[in-house]
Amino acid sequence: MKKILNNPENYADEALEGMCLAFPHLYAQSGEAGRVITRATPANSKPGIVSGGGSGHLPTFAGYVGTGLLDACAVGNVFAGPAVMDCMDAIRAANTGKGVLLLFGNYGGDKMNFAMASEMLEAEGIATRTVLACDDVGSARRDERQKRRGVAGLIYAYKIAGAKAEQPDATLDQVAEIAQRALDNTVTIGVALLPCTVPEAGKPTFTLADNEMEFGMGIHGEPGIHRGPLLAADTLADEMLNTLLQDGDIRAGDRVAVMLNSLGATPLEELFILWRQVRAGLLGHNISVSPPQIGRYATSMEMAGASLTLLKLDDELESLLNAPVASPWWSNAS
Amino acid sequence: MKKILNNPENYADEALEGMCLAFPHLYAQSGEAGRVITRATPANSKPGIVSGGGSGHLPTFAGYVGTGLLDACAVGNVFAGPAVMDCMDAIRAANTGKGVLLLFGNYGGDKMNFAMASEMLEAEGIATRTVLACDDVGSARRDERQKRRGVAGLIYAYKIAGAKAEQPDATLDQVAEIAQRALDNTVTIGVALLPCTVPEAGKPTFTLADNEMEFGMGIHGEPGIHRGPLLAADTLADEMLNTLLQDGDIRAGDRVAVMLNSLGATPLEELFILWRQVRAGLLGHNISVSPPQIGRYATSMEMAGASLTLLKLDDELESLLNAPVASPWWSNAS
Repeated sequence: MKKILNNPENYADEALEGMCLAFPHLYAQSGEAGRVITRATPANSKPGIVSGGGSGHLPTFAGYVGTGLLDACAVGNVFAGPAVMDCMDAIRAANTGKGVLLLFGNYGGDKMNFAMASEMLEAEGIATRTVLACDDVGSARRDERQKRRGVAGLIYAYKIAGAKAEQPDATLDQVAEIAQRALDNTVTIGVALLPCTVPEAGKPTFTLADNEMEFGMGIHGEPGIHRGPLLAADTLADEMLNTLLQDGDIRAGDRVAVMLNSLGATPLEELFILWRQVRAGLLGHNISVSPPQIGRYATSMEMAGASLTLLKLDDELESLLNAPVASPWWSNAS
Repeated sequence: MKKILNNPENYADEALEGMCLAFPHLYAQSGEAGRVITRATPANSKPGIVSGGGSGHLPTFAGYVGTGLLDACAVGNVFAGPAVMDCMDAIRAANTGKGVLLLFGNYGGDKMNFAMASEMLEAEGIATRTVLACDDVGSARRDERQKRRGVAGLIYAYKIAGAKAEQPDATLDQVAEIAQRALDNTVTIGVALLPCTVPEAGKPTFTLADNEMEFGMGIHGEPGIHRGPLLAADTLADEMLNTLLQDGDIRAGDRVAVMLNSLGATPLEELFILWRQVRAGLLGHNISVSPPQIGRYATSMEMAGASLTLLKLDDELESLLNAPVASPWWSNAS
């Protein structure tokens, strides 16, 4: 295991601690074990937005706490869901009296723990709504969309719901509605080249042959659509784009936001090589493109591979996507 | 070679093309082969700043073209210097009549080609100054500092000289002086865990055993100070910091900027784990710390490892470091 760490059991805690020490003007740590990340300066009065999930995906999830994004985040161990108590503490921290949106990926553990937390807090009088990211088309067929995993498309939902929630007089229902609308319009496909290693396990999450890739693999190494020889970049870009266009409700004349996300080790150079062809493909289908997000938004530590996300825009979604934000991990320059 | 590419010979060109297509409001491509990156909207009247170097280090070098940073950049093949003609075109593009600073890393090929370019352009009446980054303490002893390679510390010089050059009435000499001052105050040490693969070579740049690291290795895989077992993160952080403090002219009561830079595959989690200990070490030496830069600033594609850079600040350097900037790769939120 070639990783920079101390005791593997402390990997998640030390990474979170380091992040908060690096950006004390942005993040504060709370919760029994420091696993709840909140804004350093909580918002005064707005519908709260909480997310959560496992460690090992930075800047997802906790990095997206900030003005115009999340209010709080509950974090689990590497690739493990957050504890119920931490979900509760995150929701309490995010509540200014206007209720809290729980916005996270469609994974069994996360769903169960957030459901228990919200049930207990509803009893205390905190209103909650839950919106799940199910954007990974590699994880289930379109007619069973509710079974799909949530991946990088969740970040678009953070950005859009986060901007909506900062608007004066925004209500919890409006914030939940726009998050759901963003996610209904979002599809993602990933491809994996090399695995990562979960520190406590100490061995790679999966094995691929020297010239093999897995198309549709999940960000924790969950099975995808097919394995095969590593494709040339342009062929791979075409296959990823066509998979999304065949699945998604995106047609000539539409406008999309595009995220090309490295899973970790895949360098910017290779994202840009993919981008040439993805962009050409979209324009070839007469689909117009807003300024793309290209970089590392939702990673799996040192995994090699990339994901492509398309978000079909309308005027409101695009305006919210371009609203100001305070985060080291979301650049308005892009 | 597990990389996302088409023909390996086109890796650098396609990556540059994709970057410019992704950010057309920031970057424009020129030069005979498209290897000169300039601002999409050139500055009106200021001392120009040009850099250059090989591909494979994104966002270094070309990503730092932008307001408050570089005016133009000449780019070579992966890990190869830029062509003389491209250096000349970059300098011409950056010249508004106030001359041009050539600010790049201390590598033989880059020096030779920029020297030839500047000599020819001086004959045409374009004033130039040259400042070299020699920040890598792993590459030569302190008493032979002029032999040291330039690594991530160059980015601090871009930021500081770039901010200075935007000031009304700034002169070329002033911009060169502040770049030199920044670099005189900058030291970097790197550690390598896993190699990258240069596309045209098709095999890893070096070999390390399963539990081995190389301390002080250069970003192209140049030999470092010693090889040994991979250290625990806190021990490694201490060793990196102590190496810099023993070399640099940084003492109790000083204030420093700190960059913790991933060479590519090493994830944010591990940079933050290092940061805890680096920060504690600095504070323990009674050295105060400005908001750090933690992320991927100067990479070697998918190489695993990290570098630590310290820049001793004075009031002017700190003010320039915090000046506004338009770049996806330098976040003022950090």
